[in-house]
Amino acid sequence: MSTINVAILGFGTVGQGVCEAIDTHQDRLKEVLGKEVKVRAILIKDPAKERDIDPSIHVTTDFQDILDVPDLHVMFEAIVGEEPTYTYLTKAIEKGIHIITANKAMFAKHGPGLLEKAKRNGVSVGFEATTAGGIPVIGSIRQLLKVNEIRQIQGILNGTSNFILSQMRTRGLSFDAALKIAQEKGYAEADPNNDIEGRDAFYKLLILSQTAFGRQPDWNDIQCKGISHLTAEWLQAAESFRLRFKHAGTLWRDSADHIKGEVAPVLVHETHPFYGVEDVENAISLKGSLVGRITLLGPGAGKLPTGSAMVEDFLSLIERKYTASAESRAVAGEVLVERTHQWVLRIRKGDEYQNWFPSFTLLDHIQLGDFLYVFVEGRKETLESLLRTQCHIQAVPILKEIPLENEVKTGTAVH
Amino acid sequence: MSTINVAILGFGTVGQGVCEAIDTHQDRLKEVLGKEVKVRAILIKDPAKERDIDPSIHVTTDFQDILDVPDLHVMFEAIVGEEPTYTYLTKAIEKGIHIITANKAMFAKHGPGLLEKAKRNGVSVGFEATTAGGIPVIGSIRQLLKVNEIRQIQGILNGTSNFILSQMRTRGLSFDAALKIAQEKGYAEADPNNDIEGRDAFYKLLILSQTAFGRQPDWNDIQCKGISHLTAEWLQAAESFRLRFKHAGTLWRDSADHIKGEVAPVLVHETHPFYGVEDVENAISLKGSLVGRITLLGPGAGKLPTGSAMVEDFLSLIERKYTASAESRAVAGEVLVERTHQWVLRIRKGDEYQNWFPSFTLLDHIQLGDFLYVFVEGRKETLESLLRTQCHIQAVPILKEIPLENEVKTGTAVH
Repeated sequence: MSTINVAILGFGTVGQGVCEAIDTHQDRLKEVLGKEVKVRAILIKDPAKERDIDPSIHVTTDFQDILDVPDLHVMFEAIVGEEPTYTYLTKAIEKGIHIITANKAMFAKHGPGLLEKAKRNGVSVGFEATTAGGIPVIGSIRQLLKVNEIRQIQGILNGTSNFILSQMRTRGLSFDAALKIAQEKGYAEADPNNDIEGRDAFYKLLILSQTAFGRQPDWNDIQCKGISHLTAEWLQAAESFRLRFKHAGTLWRDSADHIKGEVAPVLVHETHPFYGVEDVENAISLKGSLVGRITLLGPGAGKLPTGSAMVEDFLSLIERKYTASAESRAVAGEVLVERTHQWVLRIRKGDEYQNWFPSFTLLDHIQLGDFLYVFVEGRKETLESLLRTQCHIQAVPILKEIPLENEVKTGTAVH
Repeated sequence: MSTINVAILGFGTVGQGVCEAIDTHQDRLKEVLGKEVKVRAILIKDPAKERDIDPSIHVTTDFQDILDVPDLHVMFEAIVGEEPTYTYLTKAIEKGIHIITANKAMFAKHGPGLLEKAKRNGVSVGFEATTAGGIPVIGSIRQLLKVNEIRQIQGILNGTSNFILSQMRTRGLSFDAALKIAQEKGYAEADPNNDIEGRDAFYKLLILSQTAFGRQPDWNDIQCKGISHLTAEWLQAAESFRLRFKHAGTLWRDSADHIKGEVAPVLVHETHPFYGVEDVENAISLKGSLVGRITLLGPGAGKLPTGSAMVEDFLSLIERKYTASAESRAVAGEVLVERTHQWVLRIRKGDEYQNWFPSFTLLDHIQLGDFLYVFVEGRKETLESLLRTQCHIQAVPILKEIPLENEVKTGTAVH
């Protein structure tokens, strides 16, 4: 039986997950591929650290050793940070080695270049694990929704933020107290800024844009807003309107066909599929030109879910699913603009608001602590001009669906 | 540019959806395949009916005309009923024509035989549209979760039943009143039995078993229970315990490694991803050996969602994604047994229940109308022996997760 030789760069949680997934699913891989998969080498950083690695595997701190592995077919990359990762992967591709990466910050920036270089060198790039952990959203777009044009993407892409919001809501905690729990549980890093200020979700959104639209928006067109300004009272006020806070990324195209995106706290109705997504779960909603809206829910991180994403990617890649055609994805079809018409506003008690209030329709309101929370409907321009003069007001939009022109409204037999 | 020639059997909602999907997405198909897709012929039943079909397409009532189309590559099948469909598809396969079917009753029964015959004849079979409409669940199992062993499947597979339950719950309607609305909206057939008694979900569950486990259970091992015995009060009692009724299909393996399944009303907690699935939506939860649980939500039927499923299947098939290896799927790994430990019981007021009640732990209770609803926890055997003697008691289980041995419980950085 012939062998597929692989190497793993990095042996933290993700690298270990890949190793374990290959090890425990060797029979399944053999059955599908008719070949054995062998981990030949692992790149590590700290040689002093103790690791439980099969002695037949070459462990090294020198990337050149990895490149020199004879007949290396695939490199799994599970390092953090842009460099030297990008340099490593460029060299691998130039040597005709397929790559599979979990590195979102690197891939958001260098993904287009790596995909292009891979095409020229006749190798493939797997990047399922960069976005939403074990949820096969990249594969769904690349392999299962190829006829559909993707018109809108919404996602809960950062498990840490979602966990914090869940804790604040269910236990009435402050943001700081919830963050502390996330850190104690190992969900948040010592420096949690990438997660709670939306940077991590931002990278994933760019990768989704690349996959679904074949290109990325101008990075400056993506507003990025975190969750650290939210309070337990804000969450409670939302709940009283049967709305729930989620930290979501959205992508859409404006009337000039520019791709726009936003990472921000939003409110979702209880009918929205994100409403029940709690703790470290992730969720992605895709709106396709034919299929309508489908939503994928699942684990956004973790050793084995991420290992799963990388090993499933590996199988697709070896079976040559990532043909050139799979990568082409021009944006076409009508342009749709997202208009958000409803918000919940937070106004400090005693502030003057009679003069602008008639511009909106009042749907509901509640008073909590020092603030009045009002659930309103109105024109976007009205809100924007209001916020320019009344900068103490906070406004959170309700996440809305872009309707498709062909939205199925007619009654047809349903089973 | 060369051409891929296709024919469509049946021109009801689904057949029209396929035709429209090909027509409106011709550019996209050309871009991906580098070939034009041409509908050459359509098989209809009633020649007198008026139809809006491009005059270049041959419309016929004679299946032999379809078989005689020169260089026919793919046949889309959108007919209802087992025969003559099965005979048609057998003939197509024998002639070397790929088939794509939406016919669940036929495919549940003849799927294994058709897949085997297709393999021998070097053609592929697409059957995404048989199960859960536009949700790409079959594709996810066949293409994206090939290393993972699927350990458990749960699904809301019948949109009509789900719609009826939504109506009963939100509007306090009786089953009959809700069914009437479903019929008025065209969601339920004049004879709704296939939907409301679980037969439709049963067929889909068999197809999921075939896809995920490589084989089907003994049909007699699948208990099939409908929703017509439920009352608005039952739903209201559940809601008071923060539980919600869903009509779900589940698949698992018993300790003798037999595949077992059940279609029945169950109760789900508000933390379960099915909790918010309302109206005609479908949902499928898959538990994989590596990925853990992922859930797919979306439209379970409709002209374009089903057309989407068939045309995406077509693309995968033409790009030769359905290799022999994709079809092999032996069940391996540890055997898991689902044990349901919690139920809501409905007991008629005034009935004697003191003598058996201590066998369970009482979690909550509510009295509504003539009944007492009790939320209990206990051993399955205890409940079964109780129901044998107290046959007036109704019991609905809470849908539970099968834990995986490797379930990720350790705190690892989550993003």
